[in-house]
Amino acid sequence: MNKKGLTILMRARMRPSDPSKILLSPLADKVNRVAPDKQANQSGGSGMEPASENGNEQTNFSCRNRRPFELVKESMHSAISMNKTEVLDDVLNDFTEGYFSLSTESRKALLLSLAKEYDLNRAQVRELIKQYLGLELPKADPAEEGNVAEESSLSAFYRIERNLRHALKPAYEVLFERLNTHPGGLKFLSILRADILSILAEENIPSLRALDSYLKEKLGTWLSPATLELHQITWDYPASLLEKIVAYEAVHPISNLLDLKRRLGVGRRCFGYLHPAIPGEPLIFIEVALLKTVAQTIQEVLWDDPPILEHEATCALFYSISSTQPGLAGINLGKFLIKRVITLVKREMPQISTFATLSPIPGYMQWLLSKLASQLKLAETDDATHTSSDQSGSSFWENILEPEEERALLNLSEEYKAMTNGMEVMFNLLTTKDYAWTNSPEMLSVLKPPLMRLCARYLLQEKKRGKALDSVANFHLQNGAMVERINWMADRSEKGQHQSAGIMVNYVYRLENIEEYAQSYFSTGQIHSSDDILQYVKGVEA
Amino acid sequence: MNKKGLTILMRARMRPSDPSKILLSPLADKVNRVAPDKQANQSGGSGMEPASENGNEQTNFSCRNRRPFELVKESMHSAISMNKTEVLDDVLNDFTEGYFSLSTESRKALLLSLAKEYDLNRAQVRELIKQYLGLELPKADPAEEGNVAEESSLSAFYRIERNLRHALKPAYEVLFERLNTHPGGLKFLSILRADILSILAEENIPSLRALDSYLKEKLGTWLSPATLELHQITWDYPASLLEKIVAYEAVHPISNLLDLKRRLGVGRRCFGYLHPAIPGEPLIFIEVALLKTVAQTIQEVLWDDPPILEHEATCALFYSISSTQPGLAGINLGKFLIKRVITLVKREMPQISTFATLSPIPGYMQWLLSKLASQLKLAETDDATHTSSDQSGSSFWENILEPEEERALLNLSEEYKAMTNGMEVMFNLLTTKDYAWTNSPEMLSVLKPPLMRLCARYLLQEKKRGKALDSVANFHLQNGAMVERINWMADRSEKGQHQSAGIMVNYVYRLENIEEYAQSYFSTGQIHSSDDILQYVKGVEA
Repeated sequence: MNKKGLTILMRARMRPSDPSKILLSPLADKVNRVAPDKQANQSGGSGMEPASENGNEQTNFSCRNRRPFELVKESMHSAISMNKTEVLDDVLNDFTEGYFSLSTESRKALLLSLAKEYDLNRAQVRELIKQYLGLELPKADPAEEGNVAEESSLSAFYRIERNLRHALKPAYEVLFERLNTHPGGLKFLSILRADILSILAEENIPSLRALDSYLKEKLGTWLSPATLELHQITWDYPASLLEKIVAYEAVHPISNLLDLKRRLGVGRRCFGYLHPAIPGEPLIFIEVALLKTVAQTIQEVLWDDPPILEHEATCALFYSISSTQPGLAGINLGKFLIKRVITLVKREMPQISTFATLSPIPGYMQWLLSKLASQLKLAETDDATHTSSDQSGSSFWENILEPEEERALLNLSEEYKAMTNGMEVMFNLLTTKDYAWTNSPEMLSVLKPPLMRLCARYLLQEKKRGKALDSVANFHLQNGAMVERINWMADRSEKGQHQSAGIMVNYVYRLENIEEYAQSYFSTGQIHSSDDILQYVKGVEA
Repeated sequence: MNKKGLTILMRARMRPSDPSKILLSPLADKVNRVAPDKQANQSGGSGMEPASENGNEQTNFSCRNRRPFELVKESMHSAISMNKTEVLDDVLNDFTEGYFSLSTESRKALLLSLAKEYDLNRAQVRELIKQYLGLELPKADPAEEGNVAEESSLSAFYRIERNLRHALKPAYEVLFERLNTHPGGLKFLSILRADILSILAEENIPSLRALDSYLKEKLGTWLSPATLELHQITWDYPASLLEKIVAYEAVHPISNLLDLKRRLGVGRRCFGYLHPAIPGEPLIFIEVALLKTVAQTIQEVLWDDPPILEHEATCALFYSISSTQPGLAGINLGKFLIKRVITLVKREMPQISTFATLSPIPGYMQWLLSKLASQLKLAETDDATHTSSDQSGSSFWENILEPEEERALLNLSEEYKAMTNGMEVMFNLLTTKDYAWTNSPEMLSVLKPPLMRLCARYLLQEKKRGKALDSVANFHLQNGAMVERINWMADRSEKGQHQSAGIMVNYVYRLENIEEYAQSYFSTGQIHSSDDILQYVKGVEA
């Protein structure tokens, strides 16, 4: 059927009745500012996310028309308990506007009251459970399928299981469901969850965590790949949407309109997933550069001018993936994005044979510094309790440096020779203000071997629950990529230095291996890599 | 944002990769035939549905390439148990094709195996339940909100409740979820459910009923109003879609292309809800006639030629609502349809001041005949056991005829005078072959008063669970309509005679009362009606 021939008159309950209401959201503030110094994806919480800005912009709420807490709480109560299907829109508008008018503290109080006062009915659950335990399990007799007696004895199970399923739904589910079908409601839920996540980052509150996990599951259903639309975003797109690309680009900030125009122009592509209920802003987008070879540094991608002729390109380089909604953290929106984009690019330009990324390594320095710090701590304790805990203490201790690296570090200066070991020197160098070591050719040459080697170890061997510890690595590996190459001084921005000592990594997608690699990573955690990068970790125990 | 300016390149997982696969569905057979003799909505099961064809076309499966049962069962097992996200499309295609190739009996066997072998793990549920009962409920102390000790004692509850929620999901949920995000899968699920419903109509199988209720709940979520698109269907729409309008029109069958063209032409409108995952066929559609006054008979709507000039119209008459998917029975797709259509028509033609329906009364004769039969039975029993059960027997007995109606019926002929009472005469007249009474002016004049009066009683006073017994009445009342007028000999088609002795009803939507009426009907079951129709039931006890 020719979709264009049909006119969608109304997307039931989808379009915001008043678009200005959406702008009341705290995220609207964000559109006007770019925060280049923010660290993307530091937490690495879900381990599955492409970079996204952290959610602390929630404090920038509008306080022009603040409403009393009790009034907003009342409208929340109405939104949950009212039966009137038709006046519900007004009630929900009232509640969402009221929520936006609250201070951070009041929002927290409201969310806590939602989590605790609109929880499930435990007495009812207990009652049903007792009924359930009173039932006798029918003998499983696979030979007699469709046994009538068995069937009818199961009826009671079905009934109580169904009731139990409903009783286990917290009362706040009604609010989530209603908001989901309310114009602008899905976006509101995403903001609500961002607020929840930033509260939970400060303080672990079990009831709020339970609410969050429930909401996350719901959002995951509502934002299934089936509901997402893939768009190629071009300079012809509405300015209001492009403005959001600028605001949300979390990997390599866009400095001005010219920069944006280049990223959408010749030799470049930008694709994004939009959801019909959140019009005007992609939930996730990916930027692609068409090149002759796989780029080693982000500088050559961002600053090559003029770009090459498109028909000369043989490589499509994914150099930035940003998710735009902090409230959707942990929901894998990028699942099919890369594969679909590869299909589209290949269709348009069959001469492209390499699909690669130039990716940040957001968790590398965090991992390395904490590794160094804990080893230094262990060494200290070891010294203090040398006689008593000689063996047990030492068993945790590991010199993560090779002998020649250790030597080179201690030899850097007289000052360092006084230090306990090479790790202390390394820790001190890496934590000096303004990354002074990057300006000294000598320090650079001494630090490069251990930093590159340990980076390979971090990417290929450091795991969390059987998956790559680094969130971006995990994202590409589960999509079926392999680790191809790590690049020294590939991102000289402050953020690049801070995250990964300026190192970046190329992941490569080989069309013929994508399925197989995704599958083996999924089932056994196996990380495929090139021989080059494997050299760094040869002989080192995993 | 201007939606038209954006190109949807791909609707992730939505478009069927091979549209011909959809055509394997048994429903495809149906498109080529119109079944004018079928009774719409006889069952009235959900009590909330507009008319829809009953689901027995599922037996018309294609048996050209029948596959062995065990092979299809195996592919169903793979579809549920496989982890590979990427090869899943092939597995699901394999399963759906295999399913369509099965005979009715094999389908039933497969569905039973799905219901029983892919149920939930009762041992696991029992284990979790025991853990849950071991927990102690924290004292509820509303004065101490955010109490830390309470919070942490609740953690254990949250954890087990969450696990219990997951354990209570049957294994077949995975299949439903996967099909929902698979191209053509939602349509397939609707066909699957139609098959299930027709099995359950023959035989009550608890495990299959439990599966059906689970699937129905899922479909209800996936087809929420938020996902439906309202279209005005015109003669410019693809023939493949219009063909389905012809096939699915269940209220007043469309006899030929000219008839269809008139229903989409001047003085007429047709609106339908489409779902993006089921392209090319509306799930529900409504037909509207623009008139000078509220029509009393369907003949004047279907055959008025030429139609009036549109600018002279003051009334929009909804004369047909059809849902197209028997597998979606019980899911209220029409919820917001009427209100939205009213808004659209009012916007286009502000001079329209009356919004009314000319509706069938699908359950009237069924109710009346069974009422008459049971009263006659009671009268018989009463005679036989006159002495022993004099009081108790009579207490159920009610002469539903007025004295003068009784008299007129008995006086119709000598033959009837011998009968016990007027109800017996009435029953015999109404059940004569070919509705012979409609050809006798005398019988018509004698039957009209009781038929009209009892029809008003049926519409206004006969309830099921506090709601109107008649499914179409219930549909419009819950949408906020009132019962305005009943019309004698308003539908002279065989179907009209069979359903409601040719009587039709006008429901009227008064813009200023829609909310209030919907609300009072929802909460108290109150049915608003005109004074005219109220006259019929005055003085009769409710």
